[in-house]
Amino acid sequence: MANAPHAQNLYKFDLREASFVLFEQFKLAELLSKEPYEAWGEEDVRMVLQECYRFSCEVLGPLNTVGDEEGCRVEDGQAIVPKGFKEAWDKIYEAGWKALGVAPEYDGQGAPRSVFLLAEEFITGANTSFSTYPGLAHGAAELVETFGTHEQKEKYLRKMYHGTWGGTMCLTEPDAGSDVGAVRTKAVKNADGTYSITGTKMFITAGDYDMVENIIHMVLARVEGAPAGTKGLSLFIVPKMRINADGTTGESNDVQTAKLEHKMGIRGSATAVLNFGDNGKCIGELMGGVEHAGMAQMFKMMNGARIAVGIQSLAVASSAYLNALAYAKERKQGSSIESFKDPTAPKVTIIHHPDVRRMLLDMKSRVEGIRALCVKLAMHQDRAQMLAGKDDAAAQDHQGQVELLTPLVKAYASDQAFRVCETAIQTMGGVGYTCDYGVEQYCRDSKIFSIYEGTNHIQAMDLVGRKLGQRGGANLQKFLGDVGAFCAKHKEHPKLGASVKVLQQASDAIGGNAMRLLMWSQMGRLPMVPVYANRYLEMMSETAVGWLLLDAAVIAADKIASVAEGHPDHAFYTGKIAAAVYYAKNVLPGVMSKAEMMNMEDDTALTVPEEAFASI
Amino acid sequence: MANAPHAQNLYKFDLREASFVLFEQFKLAELLSKEPYEAWGEEDVRMVLQECYRFSCEVLGPLNTVGDEEGCRVEDGQAIVPKGFKEAWDKIYEAGWKALGVAPEYDGQGAPRSVFLLAEEFITGANTSFSTYPGLAHGAAELVETFGTHEQKEKYLRKMYHGTWGGTMCLTEPDAGSDVGAVRTKAVKNADGTYSITGTKMFITAGDYDMVENIIHMVLARVEGAPAGTKGLSLFIVPKMRINADGTTGESNDVQTAKLEHKMGIRGSATAVLNFGDNGKCIGELMGGVEHAGMAQMFKMMNGARIAVGIQSLAVASSAYLNALAYAKERKQGSSIESFKDPTAPKVTIIHHPDVRRMLLDMKSRVEGIRALCVKLAMHQDRAQMLAGKDDAAAQDHQGQVELLTPLVKAYASDQAFRVCETAIQTMGGVGYTCDYGVEQYCRDSKIFSIYEGTNHIQAMDLVGRKLGQRGGANLQKFLGDVGAFCAKHKEHPKLGASVKVLQQASDAIGGNAMRLLMWSQMGRLPMVPVYANRYLEMMSETAVGWLLLDAAVIAADKIASVAEGHPDHAFYTGKIAAAVYYAKNVLPGVMSKAEMMNMEDDTALTVPEEAFASI
Repeated sequence: MANAPHAQNLYKFDLREASFVLFEQFKLAELLSKEPYEAWGEEDVRMVLQECYRFSCEVLGPLNTVGDEEGCRVEDGQAIVPKGFKEAWDKIYEAGWKALGVAPEYDGQGAPRSVFLLAEEFITGANTSFSTYPGLAHGAAELVETFGTHEQKEKYLRKMYHGTWGGTMCLTEPDAGSDVGAVRTKAVKNADGTYSITGTKMFITAGDYDMVENIIHMVLARVEGAPAGTKGLSLFIVPKMRINADGTTGESNDVQTAKLEHKMGIRGSATAVLNFGDNGKCIGELMGGVEHAGMAQMFKMMNGARIAVGIQSLAVASSAYLNALAYAKERKQGSSIESFKDPTAPKVTIIHHPDVRRMLLDMKSRVEGIRALCVKLAMHQDRAQMLAGKDDAAAQDHQGQVELLTPLVKAYASDQAFRVCETAIQTMGGVGYTCDYGVEQYCRDSKIFSIYEGTNHIQAMDLVGRKLGQRGGANLQKFLGDVGAFCAKHKEHPKLGASVKVLQQASDAIGGNAMRLLMWSQMGRLPMVPVYANRYLEMMSETAVGWLLLDAAVIAADKIASVAEGHPDHAFYTGKIAAAVYYAKNVLPGVMSKAEMMNMEDDTALTVPEEAFASI
Repeated sequence: MANAPHAQNLYKFDLREASFVLFEQFKLAELLSKEPYEAWGEEDVRMVLQECYRFSCEVLGPLNTVGDEEGCRVEDGQAIVPKGFKEAWDKIYEAGWKALGVAPEYDGQGAPRSVFLLAEEFITGANTSFSTYPGLAHGAAELVETFGTHEQKEKYLRKMYHGTWGGTMCLTEPDAGSDVGAVRTKAVKNADGTYSITGTKMFITAGDYDMVENIIHMVLARVEGAPAGTKGLSLFIVPKMRINADGTTGESNDVQTAKLEHKMGIRGSATAVLNFGDNGKCIGELMGGVEHAGMAQMFKMMNGARIAVGIQSLAVASSAYLNALAYAKERKQGSSIESFKDPTAPKVTIIHHPDVRRMLLDMKSRVEGIRALCVKLAMHQDRAQMLAGKDDAAAQDHQGQVELLTPLVKAYASDQAFRVCETAIQTMGGVGYTCDYGVEQYCRDSKIFSIYEGTNHIQAMDLVGRKLGQRGGANLQKFLGDVGAFCAKHKEHPKLGASVKVLQQASDAIGGNAMRLLMWSQMGRLPMVPVYANRYLEMMSETAVGWLLLDAAVIAADKIASVAEGHPDHAFYTGKIAAAVYYAKNVLPGVMSKAEMMNMEDDTALTVPEEAFASI
């Protein structure tokens, strides 16, 4: 292969957008300088984000194509990461970027989730593969923080949060992917209270690497004699290397990396097959000292991981969009449509072409809508945390929205990320298909997002099977109530009224079809629910995104009146309005159409016989 | 990277489907054994397709992942193809598979296009990268056959059609991709009537290779002093090696391969930058001896190439679907939804899960609908050829449908191919994302289809700007009339009536919006046309596909009555009905929604200022 002149750093982000979404749309200032965010002022937030963005571009961005080209390999049961990753690992922990969201108790900075989320967007957008290593380590540590005994917290947390040790999440097995209950990894209790672990885990993201002295695996296993299914699962803390009584690293704990997957994307991330206890010498500690609680504990980490996948999706989609935009502003080809018959007409940059503008606006609206959805979720987390113990009912309302929005953030963001990357390639044409510009890598990397941490169908089933009915339907009612109140207030808005009315129709459609889903499950037509679950998740996500884009547009329309036309904010607010109107008139009407399709109650997918799909 | 156990041949096709679409749906038998297909009987067609499928699986299929992994490279200005390709080239020409569609006059077999099309589906589906080399050679030869002088035909055709020489199509330049009129390659007439060619062409698919003694490039260039734009372009036949008077291969003709692109997919296909005349020694012959006719001539080849891209798209999508289907029938995971609360319930193959069935049916309907659309187009070509000189008006009607459907076949098939490949990956989950099963390669390969041979927006503009109004709108009227007649006839069909009514609504919607497009272009709102062109192409394609699926379903519903339930045909026909109903109730209603969106006449994409897209 010819040596493609890879860009050193492709990652792009618009910091003005971060400021808008945090402070103008979601009013972060209301939370700052108060418990538990007393250490955080507005300027701190701005500075931290600016610096984290710079760090991501300078340190992580240049390693993105390196990781893709070099990939990972196994040597003697040890995974080796691409060159430069170890140095980046050291730098990201030195700089403290992974400690932003860690509690001060564990030497972290206790930033609000909404701030932490944007920092994570930069890290994962600059280098998705790299970000999986510290990302999983952080998630594993959160699990120990939530469910571990006091001793376990003291033993593991500081080292895991600050990069001395890594961490992973080991659920999947060769015959247990989406069907977690089929886990066969075995735990046998020893006389000293530890457990001997035996089994094989596969598709373990960032499952092994040579950047740290130890990796702490969170392993789902079944204690001898435990019941079948998810109820019989327990969670174990299984270090790769034994830990001596004085905290130093001891001998091997009999965890071997058997194989790494060769994948479409995130090639710099080691997706491992791990063998535990092949030689009968793998010892684990029971998480929190409680058996059969593994599934509930893992769910905690999975929810965090699902939100993290939403952020990955947002990050990659956003940079794909901004790269396509930069190219469209720079690349000259063709003349303006008005003079298409005149061969001597001056050449224009391709952003002048209507279809290019349409693609850009399409990407912009999806990316910014998803970002608003992610930040809204994080703000609910922050408010829930702030209100806990003070106003528990209000805190529960916020937590309810977190629950409701998590499957949307994971599934809609990941589906759309692939769509946005595809559109970015299309915008750039043949050039986008080459490896020279990196959007094709974004596209390849992004395809995993709809699969890992629970496929998007699992998200859809979580939404329609659990979340819609949670708290007696209160979470959904709160969501629909908020959308309804927004529509009532702004339906006569001079600029946005027509779009707000489309939103109201979409909201009515998802309310109505929530009833239909309920009816199916109660009237003996349960299999109809999974047939339409993904569609329903998409309809609800589009409604949420349409709402948040219009909410941003209302703010922008208010503010633009007092901004001079040449001021950069004038253009910025104009863009916010454009994205909302575009989405309302080009995406939201599809919600009503999907609702009508649900009303047709087509059950062909259920009734068609297996042998009718093809004659082979 | 670990050595992934690549399947030897992934390609799959259902020959029962070929038989249905050719003989049951499109009545090929009416054309066989008559001029110009007098040499072809039904059994010949069946045998040829069966053999060509076998050849594709055995010879081409095993090289598909080889090509992807090894890629192409340049050595001393010469592109080197992956190992095994040269042997496959020799075998495909030896076996005569590339001569199926060649006229007997040039030692070909003169098969109907519709038969040739399915053979091409096998070849390109088994190995898309490989197929680009003989595919472009064939297209270049067709160009010489159509526009060359008698001498040129005699000199080039037999060698190009039968694999002694290759051929390419050289349009794109660094500053002239979609804007073909910007071509700067120069031609200067010499005293002997030849032309000296100087310039650089890029993104030349299958642009150079070491499988043949010579490659005949079709080069678009501007004769010194010619007018600007497309009108001043001429087409030249430019061999890579000079051809001696006795037909033997002479010295170099000063054509150098400067670079190959490193790409997301079709990595076994050499996408070349070619330098013509760097040393002033590149000589070309003027195609047909006529200057300034290059664009019209090239269009002929482009139309063929566009249909070929539609076939590529169909081929890859179809095999992705059938691979996902095979996996879903084999892979056990989870238990049936009815017993989801019982951890001891038996594990089932994943085809039992409603969402997997939904994805499979979605892929099936798109793939089979697109195949019907491609074959319909080819049947119009065959009937036009058969009727030419006998009933010219009828022949023109058929040719009109070829013109109208070509942009649909190219753009809709390619957009959907990427979507189907994405769905195939999703169906297979994490396994689909690894390189072990090859659907991820299908996905990467397929992304180019929406870009090359005219981006899909160029197709959409061809449809709305040229084809809708062609022959005073007669082609569109014929299309709508055929759909309308079908709906009138079957709207009370006991099984399919409800679906047929949805089709009628879709057809009305595209008829109405054709008027809107016309109004925009005539009322000074021309830039609105490109804003909605892609959407219109999609609406019209979905209507066409929905129609052809229902047409197949009507036939299947008639025939199934006389087939015993255990007979394989019973399942096959059931599948045809299921695909049509699914598409009518899950895709077609989107046409009306898109029509409503067009009715909103949103011009945000046009009016949003460039600086409003982002602050960076």
